[in-house]
Amino acid sequence: MYKLVLIRHGESTWNLENRFTGWTDVDLTPTGVEQAKTAGRLLKEAGYDFDIAYTSVLKRAVWTLWHCLDQMDRTWLPVRHAWRLNERHYGALQGLNKADMAKQYGDEQVLIWRRSYDTPPPALEATDPRSERGDRRYAGLAEGDVPLTECLKDTVARVLPFWNETVAPTIKSGQRVVIAAHGNSIRALVKYLDNIADDAIVGVNIPNGIPLVYELDENLKPLKSYYLGDAEAAAKAAAAVANQGKA
Amino acid sequence: MYKLVLIRHGESTWNLENRFTGWTDVDLTPTGVEQAKTAGRLLKEAGYDFDIAYTSVLKRAVWTLWHCLDQMDRTWLPVRHAWRLNERHYGALQGLNKADMAKQYGDEQVLIWRRSYDTPPPALEATDPRSERGDRRYAGLAEGDVPLTECLKDTVARVLPFWNETVAPTIKSGQRVVIAAHGNSIRALVKYLDNIADDAIVGVNIPNGIPLVYELDENLKPLKSYYLGDAEAAAKAAAAVANQGKA
Repeated sequence: MYKLVLIRHGESTWNLENRFTGWTDVDLTPTGVEQAKTAGRLLKEAGYDFDIAYTSVLKRAVWTLWHCLDQMDRTWLPVRHAWRLNERHYGALQGLNKADMAKQYGDEQVLIWRRSYDTPPPALEATDPRSERGDRRYAGLAEGDVPLTECLKDTVARVLPFWNETVAPTIKSGQRVVIAAHGNSIRALVKYLDNIADDAIVGVNIPNGIPLVYELDENLKPLKSYYLGDAEAAAKAAAAVANQGKA
Repeated sequence: MYKLVLIRHGESTWNLENRFTGWTDVDLTPTGVEQAKTAGRLLKEAGYDFDIAYTSVLKRAVWTLWHCLDQMDRTWLPVRHAWRLNERHYGALQGLNKADMAKQYGDEQVLIWRRSYDTPPPALEATDPRSERGDRRYAGLAEGDVPLTECLKDTVARVLPFWNETVAPTIKSGQRVVIAAHGNSIRALVKYLDNIADDAIVGVNIPNGIPLVYELDENLKPLKSYYLGDAEAAAKAAAAVANQGKA
């Protein structure tokens, strides 16, 4: 009935450096740019087309979308930005190396910070220079609503209103939607769409820059979902994501 | 009272090849990309900021805007696309070399095609493979309203409704606007804003990739206008545009 395409951004500079990124606004690497272009070519070759695109307010997702749309000759498509599609906020871990943290606190603690559904990492101080409070792009939010840390449950809680109020009605109106976002904002959508239990979502990893297609029925319930292109490569890339937090 | 920034796209592949481009959707050259980035850096260094950006549905303007916004750390700004900001349609000349045409038809004829206010170049046939009829991005237009050629007067006629209905109210609402567009859609705006006579607009040339700032009063009448950065370089670049159509 409907198709929805989700794309996690291509490799970012902090993916490459294995650092917790969260809301920090880092660039794509040259590899990330190539992943984004490849995603666009895959979509074009497979005959996909879109009417509207959604992305976050973070440039690694925005550039992924732009490169992807360019490869599809769709630079002119409407693009809407939403902070609700941002990566999970990583709190006081933002900027720190995942493997260093694993050496210091143990693999298990880092796995909890990375993948616990309802335990957030330590919060940033509101006065920390890394805090996004005061950033113009979040000016529409009440100051206290700009997060200082998030667990995935928090991310789900702020992604779903955007799904329900904006994306779902747009899909139902017949518009073909692509969303370029982040590992955890996409996991939030996947958890909701596939009705994955809180303790099972830990095992779901989203690879960088590979279009994830959902075929949805008239109530937007998934009929099936799959990665475009080489399925084995997608599985390998997802497994690599799972291993990033090990010492 | 208000500031408006206009930017003509950076050098395109067909600017470089000295071909009539019009609505043909060609890429920026590496020089064009650098011009766009330089425009963004100039704007940032001079303290400019924006709330919304407008551009055409042609990728040389879109990419110019994207590179510019990236240099300003504003990849997340809302961007609205409008075919009304497209370059003037160059009719049957689209794709042909300006100097070749000057050799064949004489400098004077090419100057008429390039700069006459109300004489359009020969029209494309609607069935010409170069025609944009049937292109999805113009699907909102009645088929007969997709132009097959335009003189500047035609371009002014379709740019002004966009100015009056969209841009002007946005500026008056206090939003800071940047427009990334094309030589002739910007000339159309300049003609209107500065109230330039039909026979005088021929002498106005817009250089690639240099921000043109208008300071406007509360009725959006210009108080003054200027190019950002090196004024001499801007004048030289404008003169180069004027000379493109000579044998």
